Amino acid sequence: MTISSFLKRASGYLHGHPAGFKALVLVTLSSGSLIAYSDSQSETDRVGLGPNQKEQKKKKVVVLGTGWAGTSFLKDIDISSYEVQVVSPRNYFAFTPLLPSVTCGTVEARSIVEPVRNIIKKRNGEIQFFEAECLKIDATNNQVLCRSNLDQNLGGNREFSLEYDYLVIAVGARVNTFNTPGVRENCYFLKEVEDAQKIRASVIDSFERAVLPGLSEEERKTHLHFVIVGGGPTGVEFAAELHDFVQEDLVTIYPMVKDLVRITLIQSGDHILNTYDERISSFAEQKFRRDGIDVRTGCRVLGVSEKSLSVKVKSHGEVYSIPHGLVVWSTGVGTRPVVSDFMEQVGQGDRRALATNEWLRVKGTENVYALGDCATIDQRKIMEDILSIFKAADQDNSGTLTVSEFQDVVDDILIRYPQVEVYLKSKHLKDVTDLLRDPEGNERESVDIEEFKSALCHVDSQAKSLPATAQVAAQQGAYLSRCFNRRQQCHELPEGPRRFTGVGQHRFRPFRYKHFGSFAPLGGEQAAAELPGDWVSMGHSTQWLWYSVYASKQVSWRTRVLVVFDWTRRFVFGRDSSRI
Amino acid sequence: MTISSFLKRASGYLHGHPAGFKALVLVTLSSGSLIAYSDSQSETDRVGLGPNQKEQKKKKVVVLGTGWAGTSFLKDIDISSYEVQVVSPRNYFAFTPLLPSVTCGTVEARSIVEPVRNIIKKRNGEIQFFEAECLKIDATNNQVLCRSNLDQNLGGNREFSLEYDYLVIAVGARVNTFNTPGVRENCYFLKEVEDAQKIRASVIDSFERAVLPGLSEEERKTHLHFVIVGGGPTGVEFAAELHDFVQEDLVTIYPMVKDLVRITLIQSGDHILNTYDERISSFAEQKFRRDGIDVRTGCRVLGVSEKSLSVKVKSHGEVYSIPHGLVVWSTGVGTRPVVSDFMEQVGQGDRRALATNEWLRVKGTENVYALGDCATIDQRKIMEDILSIFKAADQDNSGTLTVSEFQDVVDDILIRYPQVEVYLKSKHLKDVTDLLRDPEGNERESVDIEEFKSALCHVDSQAKSLPATAQVAAQQGAYLSRCFNRRQQCHELPEGPRRFTGVGQHRFRPFRYKHFGSFAPLGGEQAAAELPGDWVSMGHSTQWLWYSVYASKQVSWRTRVLVVFDWTRRFVFGRDSSRI
Repeated sequence: MTISSFLKRASGYLHGHPAGFKALVLVTLSSGSLIAYSDSQSETDRVGLGPNQKEQKKKKVVVLGTGWAGTSFLKDIDISSYEVQVVSPRNYFAFTPLLPSVTCGTVEARSIVEPVRNIIKKRNGEIQFFEAECLKIDATNNQVLCRSNLDQNLGGNREFSLEYDYLVIAVGARVNTFNTPGVRENCYFLKEVEDAQKIRASVIDSFERAVLPGLSEEERKTHLHFVIVGGGPTGVEFAAELHDFVQEDLVTIYPMVKDLVRITLIQSGDHILNTYDERISSFAEQKFRRDGIDVRTGCRVLGVSEKSLSVKVKSHGEVYSIPHGLVVWSTGVGTRPVVSDFMEQVGQGDRRALATNEWLRVKGTENVYALGDCATIDQRKIMEDILSIFKAADQDNSGTLTVSEFQDVVDDILIRYPQVEVYLKSKHLKDVTDLLRDPEGNERESVDIEEFKSALCHVDSQAKSLPATAQVAAQQGAYLSRCFNRRQQCHELPEGPRRFTGVGQHRFRPFRYKHFGSFAPLGGEQAAAELPGDWVSMGHSTQWLWYSVYASKQVSWRTRVLVVFDWTRRFVFGRDSSRI
Repeated sequence: MTISSFLKRASGYLHGHPAGFKALVLVTLSSGSLIAYSDSQSETDRVGLGPNQKEQKKKKVVVLGTGWAGTSFLKDIDISSYEVQVVSPRNYFAFTPLLPSVTCGTVEARSIVEPVRNIIKKRNGEIQFFEAECLKIDATNNQVLCRSNLDQNLGGNREFSLEYDYLVIAVGARVNTFNTPGVRENCYFLKEVEDAQKIRASVIDSFERAVLPGLSEEERKTHLHFVIVGGGPTGVEFAAELHDFVQEDLVTIYPMVKDLVRITLIQSGDHILNTYDERISSFAEQKFRRDGIDVRTGCRVLGVSEKSLSVKVKSHGEVYSIPHGLVVWSTGVGTRPVVSDFMEQVGQGDRRALATNEWLRVKGTENVYALGDCATIDQRKIMEDILSIFKAADQDNSGTLTVSEFQDVVDDILIRYPQVEVYLKSKHLKDVTDLLRDPEGNERESVDIEEFKSALCHVDSQAKSLPATAQVAAQQGAYLSRCFNRRQQCHELPEGPRRFTGVGQHRFRPFRYKHFGSFAPLGGEQAAAELPGDWVSMGHSTQWLWYSVYASKQVSWRTRVLVVFDWTRRFVFGRDSSRI
């Protein structure tokens, strides 16, 4: 068969020549006015290891989790220096920012996932993956206990242990219910692909339920009342998606109940999207008001039952009950049990997330790293080191610090204490030496220790913890693999800032987060974006920017094509309402 | 935004002008060398009812099921004459012939389903659909008892009744386990979309399980032993799909276990695909042998446990046990409980399927029809009516039948007893009157009753029941809606054959199945087909014919585009192995 053999050969060519194929798809996508670029080329510097070093026994690295942090670490880790084993209950990476789109079928679940084995296959296949859940981290014996979550046929072999030289914890977080009663039993969450699929089926169920015979109008209304708790980006995007799904697709096939649908968004703060610029918050609130989405700010949920939730208005303490057909709970992140247990072991039992230093190493351990939503960087305060800094800078031991002496240590300070730069920006100061001016703003030749302390005493207030986002996690994973890959090189030639509280230099530069902006899709082909440089953009054009960025950021060309196809399909045919 | 508003307008245009859009897609598809045509134009003759008739109270029709038969009935039923209510536990129609493709991700589940509400929307939205399971048919009181399968929030309202004037049973069949112990607990089936999705996840699970640490090679082999019971078209196609999935996709990402995978097909008959032409059977067997699929014919499964199945070789009675990782059971069809219960009510308790007459009306009822896999047509035997036929034909009451007298009733005989035509064909007779020749083959002027009887006594052996296929079900649904729509017209002007056992004419022509051929995809881009006129076609070109036919037969343009996209995606990127 000519056609068949032609296609076979073409397919073989594409498999063998991914670059050629990418160029092809790039052209296709460009003609569709989408900015897509290949980011599959790794930018990591690889350390050329000599044959002797290679012959040494490879160090064992165990990675827990295949989310943004874990996958980004795996994409770049140098397998010629490390033996890598990965444990995750899911054998795929999910592009989580598109989860709200999956809840309503704008994008299919399968379009946003990529098998982990596809990702590690590119790394010469020397990374081992086990589909299992980590039950316990045994920091004393350097091993992790895992259990396969495949329930059948394993006999007594379901649990196994892995030993490690280095452990990378990237298990993510779970939903934080703030111990509100009834939430785990009666609410839907939106953290995993399965969650999004469940919500999709349940939305359809609510409509099917509402059109059954023999119900009162009140009952139909209850079935069609969708409540979202949490006015962060995820909750807001889900509300917007749901509104579009109902108005664009469902009302045409369930015309008999189209006037009974209600969407309510409950937010405990005074505004939705309150981590964004306030222009975005008010734009979103206005849009939702026009769309008929009932936004209730300043309300706290006290409990959720099967049929209603009880809400307290924070300002005047009134408590009332709302009947519901479906509640999606989307508020903050909480710690997974395996991480809480590990925190007890390393003396962090009283904290809310696993604390690491600025090099992402878990405090209280030598060889355990934590990335992404399960961890938080405990930024060293400059005031803790103020005496050492002064002493190190005061080269002539005069007891005073001149501007030129200070300038010698400025670079190291800026790297070691990033809050200094944030502080300068917040005070609109151009240069670090401006810090040494006197309270009236006049330049000083030199400062003594007390003047130095008072010049820097407000700096630490600018040390903020990083948000629990995909961007942070991905950058941390890439950073850590870079450190791992350059361990030997940087041992010989350290590249980090000098140690003020000790001698010598840090081996690596600490992790520094670079914010590329964030989006909030608001439905009706509109979105809001906060871009670097305090730029704010809102409206239809921002939605197209969103399409471009999200298409380009896909983890593989496969998912990129699928996601773009899904968007096109939605434009042409609408969303599917089959309950599968 | 110019682009946005352009696309909005384009999308609006497409929604408003489906014909224009179809032409567009048709061009796109044609350029991809696929023969696709629109079959969305209904070919049914509509009866123009006068205003008086319309004002009469509409008769209530309740349809159970939204498979091939039910949907095909709904597509054409005239809603100006009937009030139609549909009850089905699934709110979608599934293109079941592609289910084996869904098991391995060649085609996505969502690409082969179309919401029932989309299908009935085209019928002016006057058909009511309820997502519920029919629990009981109460033939005495003309009502059905249904229960919503949505488990939450319905309080005491989960059950409801619907009254009917006419009932159409099209609930399909369930898997026939032949009461083999352990089958329902330990086997996967392949009848519903959910079944296919479960199999897909389980195949991936088997591979994930097999690569876990600490297993012996024997255990890994067991996990990777896939057993299919039943060598019919479904079982064979699944075996072929699975083999392709493993060889084309899974071995590259699970290279460590690629030599441990085994596929075994167990068939009780002497050949697989034994309802097909024997050239196809042996082609399939040879292809499977080359592919390394272990085909065991002449074996009966005695029981299935969690880890093994016990098999008896029919020829010499030996019983042995096979360890397995996954068993797919695909043998024959059985009766659903609600149908069995109804059969008891109408005195068919001893039968294996609901018997209808040739007009699809359930025997023993006046207003209940049954279509598709749940029913079987009980073809009237010509020998039962032989005296009446002779009497009716013998116009001069001479006690003998001349050739010209016989010719007067031939047309009615051929319509009423289709087995006559099959018999003629099997005996290579050109004309019906050839039946009247004497045993030596010489023409006779006339025959008496005994000669007439002996001429026709072997005819009934050719009355065969129809296969349980989508083609039969769809034709039955279309036939029945045509009858319903022409009820009034055909009451006044009957169009069926004359009644030999009574007076007058039958109102409608009986249902006649027209076989358009059947396919058996065999993997590796090869297929076999049995086409009308005893044509047999095998190989790569047949696979392309299969692609064309299956693309053209999709129920909507949406699913057509999705299915073709899925095939293309599989060619370019392979199948996805994420376990979602």
